[in-house]
Amino acid sequence: MWLPIDPNSDFSIHNLPFGIFSTPNAPKRVGVALGDWVIDMPVLTDLGAFNGIDFDKNVFRRDFLNDFMATGKAVRVSVRQVLQQIFDDPCSPFKNHTSAFLVKQSDATLSMPVKVGDYTDFYSSEQHAFNVGAMFRGAENALMPNWKHLPVGYHGRASSIVVSGTPFHRPKGQLCPDETQPPFFAPTKRLDIELEMATVIGTGNDLGDRIDVNQAENHVFGFLLFNDWSARDIQRWEYVPLGPFLAKNFFSSVSPWVVTTEALASFRTDAPAQSPEVLPYLQETHRQNFDVTLEVYLEKSETDKTTPTPQRSAPFLVSRSNFKHLYWTVAQQIAHHTVNGCNLNVGDLLASGTISGPTPDSYGSFLELTWGGKNPLTLPDGTHYTFVQDYDTIIIRGFAEKEGKRVGFGEVRTTVLPAK
Amino acid sequence: MWLPIDPNSDFSIHNLPFGIFSTPNAPKRVGVALGDWVIDMPVLTDLGAFNGIDFDKNVFRRDFLNDFMATGKAVRVSVRQVLQQIFDDPCSPFKNHTSAFLVKQSDATLSMPVKVGDYTDFYSSEQHAFNVGAMFRGAENALMPNWKHLPVGYHGRASSIVVSGTPFHRPKGQLCPDETQPPFFAPTKRLDIELEMATVIGTGNDLGDRIDVNQAENHVFGFLLFNDWSARDIQRWEYVPLGPFLAKNFFSSVSPWVVTTEALASFRTDAPAQSPEVLPYLQETHRQNFDVTLEVYLEKSETDKTTPTPQRSAPFLVSRSNFKHLYWTVAQQIAHHTVNGCNLNVGDLLASGTISGPTPDSYGSFLELTWGGKNPLTLPDGTHYTFVQDYDTIIIRGFAEKEGKRVGFGEVRTTVLPAK
Repeated sequence: MWLPIDPNSDFSIHNLPFGIFSTPNAPKRVGVALGDWVIDMPVLTDLGAFNGIDFDKNVFRRDFLNDFMATGKAVRVSVRQVLQQIFDDPCSPFKNHTSAFLVKQSDATLSMPVKVGDYTDFYSSEQHAFNVGAMFRGAENALMPNWKHLPVGYHGRASSIVVSGTPFHRPKGQLCPDETQPPFFAPTKRLDIELEMATVIGTGNDLGDRIDVNQAENHVFGFLLFNDWSARDIQRWEYVPLGPFLAKNFFSSVSPWVVTTEALASFRTDAPAQSPEVLPYLQETHRQNFDVTLEVYLEKSETDKTTPTPQRSAPFLVSRSNFKHLYWTVAQQIAHHTVNGCNLNVGDLLASGTISGPTPDSYGSFLELTWGGKNPLTLPDGTHYTFVQDYDTIIIRGFAEKEGKRVGFGEVRTTVLPAK
Repeated sequence: MWLPIDPNSDFSIHNLPFGIFSTPNAPKRVGVALGDWVIDMPVLTDLGAFNGIDFDKNVFRRDFLNDFMATGKAVRVSVRQVLQQIFDDPCSPFKNHTSAFLVKQSDATLSMPVKVGDYTDFYSSEQHAFNVGAMFRGAENALMPNWKHLPVGYHGRASSIVVSGTPFHRPKGQLCPDETQPPFFAPTKRLDIELEMATVIGTGNDLGDRIDVNQAENHVFGFLLFNDWSARDIQRWEYVPLGPFLAKNFFSSVSPWVVTTEALASFRTDAPAQSPEVLPYLQETHRQNFDVTLEVYLEKSETDKTTPTPQRSAPFLVSRSNFKHLYWTVAQQIAHHTVNGCNLNVGDLLASGTISGPTPDSYGSFLELTWGGKNPLTLPDGTHYTFVQDYDTIIIRGFAEKEGKRVGFGEVRTTVLPAK
């Protein structure tokens, strides 16, 4: 590896995540993150790096990754191999062209990596489902009867999924904290996050067909960090009987770099055993999750909130969870989603649902971390905190690390602005 | 009007609905239905018909209507005026070119008119919400406390929305009719329809903005017939707590012609009064629905079901309802959907939810028509019928008629094939 890279970088030579970037003089195109750099894929293509791989090279000159993703797993694997060879080979002919094909990340603007077709949100962390159920129905009835038989999921809004760095205004909606009184219209008072991972579909299925659970991972391109912003008070009033709607669809944020399944291959770990036994279409020959540490940080606004760019606190670690805490694996989510013939398309996102670990400091939402707002967190400055406040910034980070190999997701960072 | 048109045609000169068609020798493009004909819009454009209107004429040479829809209401209105002038003017210079720009509908293949971005399903018919609630919770608790305060809605699956004429295989899924027993995997036994209308969004809003209820109709391009196919037994087991998922996303079918708001202008009628008073963001200065008769027909398979094309009965009228039976108007649906800043895009569909009228013969689903399967319908041949059977065909038709003017939607016709 002749390019100097910080050993703590999320973007090691083992990672090579794909994204979409632009620079002041050139429009959106496909890039690959490496250390502090972005590999400019159209430029590297023009230098001949991928001549040995048979695919339409114009897929790198697009506003989204979808066309590249649609070339399939074999092309993706070959492209990754070429990139690793280039940087591993001290005599690589491309070494003299780095000024052409390497762009400083600080000079690049990252944008939404994927054109999302349909977005589905699952509910696959047992601890999260238990926590929410226990809060609303008591610990004895926490899990619904269906929960251990199928990966509960529902459809979400694709249009309002945006990339890290985009702020949003606190949403307004109908609130009805006391149902003996009429509802009123106001900004949400219980603005929350949900720590999730999103699976990016690379290969779909035809309407009417289904995807076998043991083939399902072949349909995955990679993964993103996903923050499923939620307004708990809007949700409470609106969600019966058809599920969350305006409580969720105002904004969801994702990290800009899609980390491929190949990059995560070394970080597989056994998934939790399932009991009762699931139906045959959900039975895996080898149940595995990915061991990816997930962290939520809060940067609290500290100055006069009326200034446009208030000072914020140092990032405070709110929660540390892990992608491995999924009762329902990504493969099971895909098999279930398609078992009725529903068609997935390239670019679809399947979010995991909030990933809460077994201990209270690993819960993936403020709803759980503060147990419905009843047990506020104590911040380093001694103040108490329940739900997200105006001008605060939430950062989700994710990384896998093992035997000196680090594969990270970077971050998804979002600042909340006051209601319009 | 110099082109002879059957006075009973859905596609009168007042209608002029837009769709996408192809012919054996030419690919998909925009067409307008008129009588038994399709107006080939790219050909008419090349003949100079729209020279006086300033827009990119290539929008007619697309696989979907979206780019034309995005040109906005003023262009749409002008295009309609040009078409009406051409056919009203007995000396129209285009009269000698009909063989160039008129295609017989029987020679045209109609395809999905709109590239659907996001699809939302509302629940806006009071009678339907009451019926379903009464079946599950009794008549006293039929409507949830939120129902009269907001148009309940949820996100649906866009990828599996297909055009009339496409068959599908009976979906399979988890069923658990007796929750003291484990679930099992089987084809749905309670395959149902939902008689709905879908609003096609022509002009969206930016993320973070909202659409005023009294401006909302300006964002509508037009409407489609919508059959929201549903598997009631899958739905019953899976839907708590996050709403319907696999019970709905296997298939939804739409009519091929989008009828514009302009074509329906003469058929406006007062919407039901609302009590209690709704919150200000939902208050309309003039509450109106559209008086469109909606009919559901069943063509029952009558012969050996193992033959590929079984004979079917004559169409039997199962239900006659009306688009006017919406408690929540389309404008209120749009205002509510965006009040939290959620962005709508051109091509989004907002379905109404099942539209059930006040009498049992006007209910919009077999669930309601047979009251959960307990009161089967009696067909003309004396047999009883509850849910949709293999090889049966369901047809939904819709039309408005007044003072000799007829504006119809054609039909959405779907045949159910056996489970794969």
